[in-house]
Amino acid sequence: MTATQAYSELVRRSREAALLGSAASLLAWDQETYMPKGGGEHRGEQLALMAGIVHQRRTEPVIGELLAVAEASELVADPESPESANVREWRRSYDRATKLPAKLVEELARTESLAQQAWVEAKPKSDFAAFAPWLEKMIGLKKAQAEAIGYQEHLYDALIDDYEPGAKVSELRPLFVRLRERLAPLVAKIGAASRKPDESMLRRDFPLEAQREFGSKTAAEFGFDFERGRLDVTSHPFCMGVGPGDCRLTTRYDAGYFNDGFFSILHEAGHGMYEQGLEAAHYGTPMGEAVSLGVHETQSRLWENRVGRSAAFWKGRFASAQGAFPSLKGAGRDAFHFAINAVAPTFIRVDADEATYNLHVILRFEIEQDLLTGALPVADVPTAWNAKMEELLGVTPPDDRRGCLQDVHWSAGLFGYFPTYALGNIGAAQLAAAADRDLGGLDATIEKGDFGALREWLRDRVHRHGMRYRPGDLLRRATGSALDPDLLLSQLEAKYGALYGI
Amino acid sequence: MTATQAYSELVRRSREAALLGSAASLLAWDQETYMPKGGGEHRGEQLALMAGIVHQRRTEPVIGELLAVAEASELVADPESPESANVREWRRSYDRATKLPAKLVEELARTESLAQQAWVEAKPKSDFAAFAPWLEKMIGLKKAQAEAIGYQEHLYDALIDDYEPGAKVSELRPLFVRLRERLAPLVAKIGAASRKPDESMLRRDFPLEAQREFGSKTAAEFGFDFERGRLDVTSHPFCMGVGPGDCRLTTRYDAGYFNDGFFSILHEAGHGMYEQGLEAAHYGTPMGEAVSLGVHETQSRLWENRVGRSAAFWKGRFASAQGAFPSLKGAGRDAFHFAINAVAPTFIRVDADEATYNLHVILRFEIEQDLLTGALPVADVPTAWNAKMEELLGVTPPDDRRGCLQDVHWSAGLFGYFPTYALGNIGAAQLAAAADRDLGGLDATIEKGDFGALREWLRDRVHRHGMRYRPGDLLRRATGSALDPDLLLSQLEAKYGALYGI
Repeated sequence: MTATQAYSELVRRSREAALLGSAASLLAWDQETYMPKGGGEHRGEQLALMAGIVHQRRTEPVIGELLAVAEASELVADPESPESANVREWRRSYDRATKLPAKLVEELARTESLAQQAWVEAKPKSDFAAFAPWLEKMIGLKKAQAEAIGYQEHLYDALIDDYEPGAKVSELRPLFVRLRERLAPLVAKIGAASRKPDESMLRRDFPLEAQREFGSKTAAEFGFDFERGRLDVTSHPFCMGVGPGDCRLTTRYDAGYFNDGFFSILHEAGHGMYEQGLEAAHYGTPMGEAVSLGVHETQSRLWENRVGRSAAFWKGRFASAQGAFPSLKGAGRDAFHFAINAVAPTFIRVDADEATYNLHVILRFEIEQDLLTGALPVADVPTAWNAKMEELLGVTPPDDRRGCLQDVHWSAGLFGYFPTYALGNIGAAQLAAAADRDLGGLDATIEKGDFGALREWLRDRVHRHGMRYRPGDLLRRATGSALDPDLLLSQLEAKYGALYGI
Repeated sequence: MTATQAYSELVRRSREAALLGSAASLLAWDQETYMPKGGGEHRGEQLALMAGIVHQRRTEPVIGELLAVAEASELVADPESPESANVREWRRSYDRATKLPAKLVEELARTESLAQQAWVEAKPKSDFAAFAPWLEKMIGLKKAQAEAIGYQEHLYDALIDDYEPGAKVSELRPLFVRLRERLAPLVAKIGAASRKPDESMLRRDFPLEAQREFGSKTAAEFGFDFERGRLDVTSHPFCMGVGPGDCRLTTRYDAGYFNDGFFSILHEAGHGMYEQGLEAAHYGTPMGEAVSLGVHETQSRLWENRVGRSAAFWKGRFASAQGAFPSLKGAGRDAFHFAINAVAPTFIRVDADEATYNLHVILRFEIEQDLLTGALPVADVPTAWNAKMEELLGVTPPDDRRGCLQDVHWSAGLFGYFPTYALGNIGAAQLAAAADRDLGGLDATIEKGDFGALREWLRDRVHRHGMRYRPGDLLRRATGSALDPDLLLSQLEAKYGALYGI
């Protein structure tokens, strides 16, 4: 067999596994959006079986043989060629996957589906006790997964690697320490500032249908293509790329609050444009996949915060928002812009402002490590959560719904996922600065509604590359510098300094 | 290996194939309901791959070996035991499936998905020319399928058997001749009757949301469980059992016409209650599957026509309908009942009244045979369709949207499916008569809203048996007689005789 034949066969197999995986994604999307309650058990069985089949296909020994042929050939001579990138990433995932027993993979898929349904029931009732057995079971499975994969320094590293290839606790910890060092005093200064935003204008009447229309229209103007995607409602907003031409966003609406629905749509649209910007010709191979969750999050945070919460954006859009929402008539544009950028320690991560957001991530980063090492028993999670909230943010959630039950991640088995949110915030600041430089002023394009300038810059620097480069290399090529939290911190200090007069 | 072990392994394999098949069903449901336009090509690839995997699993030689062990054992001593029924049906589908090349199965699945999308585009534009190449391709594939399966008398038999096990052209033809013999004069007499219904009351303002509510409420009262199912909108109403606890109905609404939305919901709810009445413990094996499409259609037609179009039903419900739809205020109950039972030759099968409906089926039965034998070239379908409409119903569709493009079946590869609609009408009349006898008057239970009486009778006589009996045997056990169109014909003559005074 020639190397070219081996490579073609690897492409074919990779595409088939991706097709099956994407069928499972659609089942998961349906579970969150439209599935009737009674369908839950069956859905768990479907997803477990599909995960087992995908795993079986990804671990067939012939893949190892094909990879060996390709790796020894001229095909991978240029490390930046699509072939090299695909072979490198196939090797990485093959080595990871072959370490996992099929039984564990199926059990994880089944438990994820059932635990998620248990979480959906437990959350509104703040019933942590009902969810605890599922969390216990999930942690056991994730530990088993981490042990099977192996790690050099920390059990947690083996899980983080699934979302952010190569990331390690030992590298993340100093980043997070740095964030905390400068964010805590910033939040304190803001708290003590005499200038305060009037947030009451965000808590008026915002009819759901008007929110859907205004949000969709904005996402479409940013460049999310609704011919190749859609927007639905779920209890936890997400973006799911089902395949080329089919990307599903979700949000949630609160008829009495502007921020929830609107900024979730912008956030998910940012993810969605990354998915839609991947090259369809590479579909089903690493070259057609997003490089990491951290980089994915740079896209969502950029559109949500750097664009959607900027003064430039509202200069161009506030009149249109007032048209969509009569309750905003009479509100001032600057006051509105200050209100949507209000900083205050709150309970819910997804609603958090840019200054406190990373503190929420740090809390989860610490609790996840303690859960996995066993330092924190599951039963003590609510207490530990609330204590850390008090320590990091100075507030204590009144119930677990607004505390340790707020996020879908643990029920979905996504341990090691949270740190990528902070990586996304850091990277987004660096990308925004680079785009600002390259485009000769990002705000000018935003104000005149020319969102294509930023979108195409991102497409060129990030989206179209798929997994061609490792996440750190991609960021370095796009921005000229390595991951560095200080740019984000300086941006936040400048932004809030101006708004709060501090 | 013992027979019990062989049987358990067959159950396990059957369940896995069913789970995968049900995942494909959900993808197909999504394609019709929520999938963005751009997702079509990818969806076709997903469905083709899934069909290929299911087919591969259903045809593994080990299944033949396991079946041989089970068939030679005491397990199948009692022909009515669940084991016997499962083994019999597994054998039947294994023998059919092993005759089909995997390539053909995948090509059919891919073509079904793409042809259906082409049909969705072509239909509103009445653009038969755009759909013709897909029909041509589909007929080629269906012929190849029929040839691969084999048949004794007629190519078409090999396809019909997929939907109505054992049915044959040579047996259907005399039934259809009999239907035509008595329906044609009945329709003619009705056409000449001086008493006419006032259908204008059905063409008033029926707001979509009120239709959805009133229809859902009625379906729930019949016994369709919305905790284990849902209702959505598609261009062609259907019912899809995704799994135990998850059954999806669809309908379509016309804000200016009552019948479309309401009777489609009742029809699909009839199908849905059959799916929900199957025994969950048998899920994934023939004992947990509906026995045939003809029997499935008895359920939908019974609830739609025998219940939903009966005088007894509206005696109990008309006031509630007037509450839901202010436009019905002032309409008389008897006049309304006459209006929803109006008989008139029309273009659209799914909108057809009970008297003309079977004539629509006969048209398709004849055209499908001619298409498969090659007697009718695809390009001549519109002409042949219109000529037969004139011959059977005395009307000519003004365009193909209301002619040969009206139904989804050909694009979905469902050749041989249409005859089951007529079988359903015939069987429904027989089941209704038997229930009437057993319950001591069906109309009395309907009028007082005790729909549970009929539903539980059907559950006992039909639903819970799955594929335990062959379709004809099931009907004979439930009603005491073999399939016979004369009961339906007599019921229709009596019903319309009274309404039209003929």
